[in-house]
Amino acid sequence: MRGAGAGGMGRQLKSEPIALLGIGKIARDQHIPAIARSDAFHLTATVSRSGGVDGVENHTDIAALLAARPDIGVVSLCMPPVPRFDIAMAALAAGKHVMLEKPPGATVSEVHKLERLARAKGVTLFATWHSRHAAGVARARAHLRDARITHVQIDWREDVRRWHPGQDWIWQAGGLGVFDPGINALSIMTAVLPQPVHLTAATLAFPANRDTPIAADLVFAGAAGLRVDAAFDWRQEGPQSWTITVQTTDGELRLTDGGATLHIDGVLQTVAGIGEYPGLYHRFAELIEAGQSDVDTSPLAHVADAFLLGRRTTVAAFHD
Amino acid sequence: MRGAGAGGMGRQLKSEPIALLGIGKIARDQHIPAIARSDAFHLTATVSRSGGVDGVENHTDIAALLAARPDIGVVSLCMPPVPRFDIAMAALAAGKHVMLEKPPGATVSEVHKLERLARAKGVTLFATWHSRHAAGVARARAHLRDARITHVQIDWREDVRRWHPGQDWIWQAGGLGVFDPGINALSIMTAVLPQPVHLTAATLAFPANRDTPIAADLVFAGAAGLRVDAAFDWRQEGPQSWTITVQTTDGELRLTDGGATLHIDGVLQTVAGIGEYPGLYHRFAELIEAGQSDVDTSPLAHVADAFLLGRRTTVAAFHD
Repeated sequence: MRGAGAGGMGRQLKSEPIALLGIGKIARDQHIPAIARSDAFHLTATVSRSGGVDGVENHTDIAALLAARPDIGVVSLCMPPVPRFDIAMAALAAGKHVMLEKPPGATVSEVHKLERLARAKGVTLFATWHSRHAAGVARARAHLRDARITHVQIDWREDVRRWHPGQDWIWQAGGLGVFDPGINALSIMTAVLPQPVHLTAATLAFPANRDTPIAADLVFAGAAGLRVDAAFDWRQEGPQSWTITVQTTDGELRLTDGGATLHIDGVLQTVAGIGEYPGLYHRFAELIEAGQSDVDTSPLAHVADAFLLGRRTTVAAFHD
Repeated sequence: MRGAGAGGMGRQLKSEPIALLGIGKIARDQHIPAIARSDAFHLTATVSRSGGVDGVENHTDIAALLAARPDIGVVSLCMPPVPRFDIAMAALAAGKHVMLEKPPGATVSEVHKLERLARAKGVTLFATWHSRHAAGVARARAHLRDARITHVQIDWREDVRRWHPGQDWIWQAGGLGVFDPGINALSIMTAVLPQPVHLTAATLAFPANRDTPIAADLVFAGAAGLRVDAAFDWRQEGPQSWTITVQTTDGELRLTDGGATLHIDGVLQTVAGIGEYPGLYHRFAELIEAGQSDVDTSPLAHVADAFLLGRRTTVAAFHD
């Protein structure tokens, strides 16, 4: 998409038409503004049963889109993972480049299927983790590359009523519950730690009337005694926290505000970024141009491991 | 281990000392008899806290074994997955070839760590799936290689009181519950189907007083409309069933007795095998000789996906 001789600034020579499928809260809050700011893409069509976007052609399903607009070579899928798989397979089978909201699937196995199909069709599949594009994350990764890390504390505590109002799917089996935000923390963890960790213990708290957990405590182990403690909680009123604190033999690194703010040894670091979702679309354009895919299932695999290994407790019923 | 010029019959020229760690029911019922029958290995030491094997040197932990017997280059680990990981890492780090009972880990991520360490140390890691060595499985796989499969029905129904008496760990978080036998069915499924499938729905029934499910119903989807239905149930009294029935456009293939018996279109097929666990030790010797590992996490990944995606129901308390 980007011309080979296109200066050194990473600007796009040409903007590609893109279709956005699944026009819900995340599409309106994040994807549509990010595409509007992108030099690489312009929003050409949507697929939505509940209404599209003013002034943009809308189709009721992927089949109608593919039939009507063979000229659109790039699609971005924003619906929840359970209904998304068949749509993603159809788009890849039609030779489209595909971007997936997180989590990339309802299961780990299905993501590997998408990956195989993308490879067979020679198109780009981008399984996004938006939190990895938070402003402080790249700098944190660079700082930790050669660090000797002794402990990591993850606190991801937010008020589900405030951030997921009326989103029933997060409470249904496969909807992940508190892991829907928690997987953002795990996507940062797996990006900034220089060594892999694995889950050794977990406790998942299920509301009596729900199929997914409202809180979870996780313990991971790495090499050389590294331990990670993670606390995810959706019952946090008042101040919200999305914090990762890393202790190393040389001092402390602290990401707050979901990765947007970075302190090293208590000193605020100057970090800059174009924003999480603009960062995703920038990266998607780079991947398409390079003919590559980017599919890292490790955050989802950690969540699956937590459901597999975790002890379940039942807590008070939750009502929106 | 096998000499390059050692005839054509796959006989071992030399028997290697092997240590067996975790002397419980599966070790006594299967591993010790299989090693006794093996030309490739002879049981030289055990590690057990609850008593070893008459006439075989016993150590209380892996560290003591490694210190006392540097001459033993091969170990087989039979303890449950939760306590096994650290032991497996220690054995691989010491340069031993390692065989793992199924399931290969309490989490999928930890198995990938073992795999990386084995590669780094240049030793063999064999994550076994004993049911794949049942007599009918190789023939079933060959028969299905070019088949057009329309439906698979898996029925794995057994009496937990009969097969797992007093084994508390299967009821503890990470112990898998009914997936402990059910994963055997999934190991056959993933071996005989010529295409990958992914889980699309699951229901897991947890006894009110237990941390793992006593029954599970699973649905998988493959390409071209292929559907797999699996029913795992630990409450089966009377006749037990471990059956996989595959419908193809050319007829029916049916594995019964856990894969030991094969019918094609109702006709009993003549199949032969040396037995599941003898088959594992034969394969382990081949892998060591070839300098290869065999680590397929797909059955465990399907189980993790079932815990991740599955809807939970609560059923009557279970008492041994």
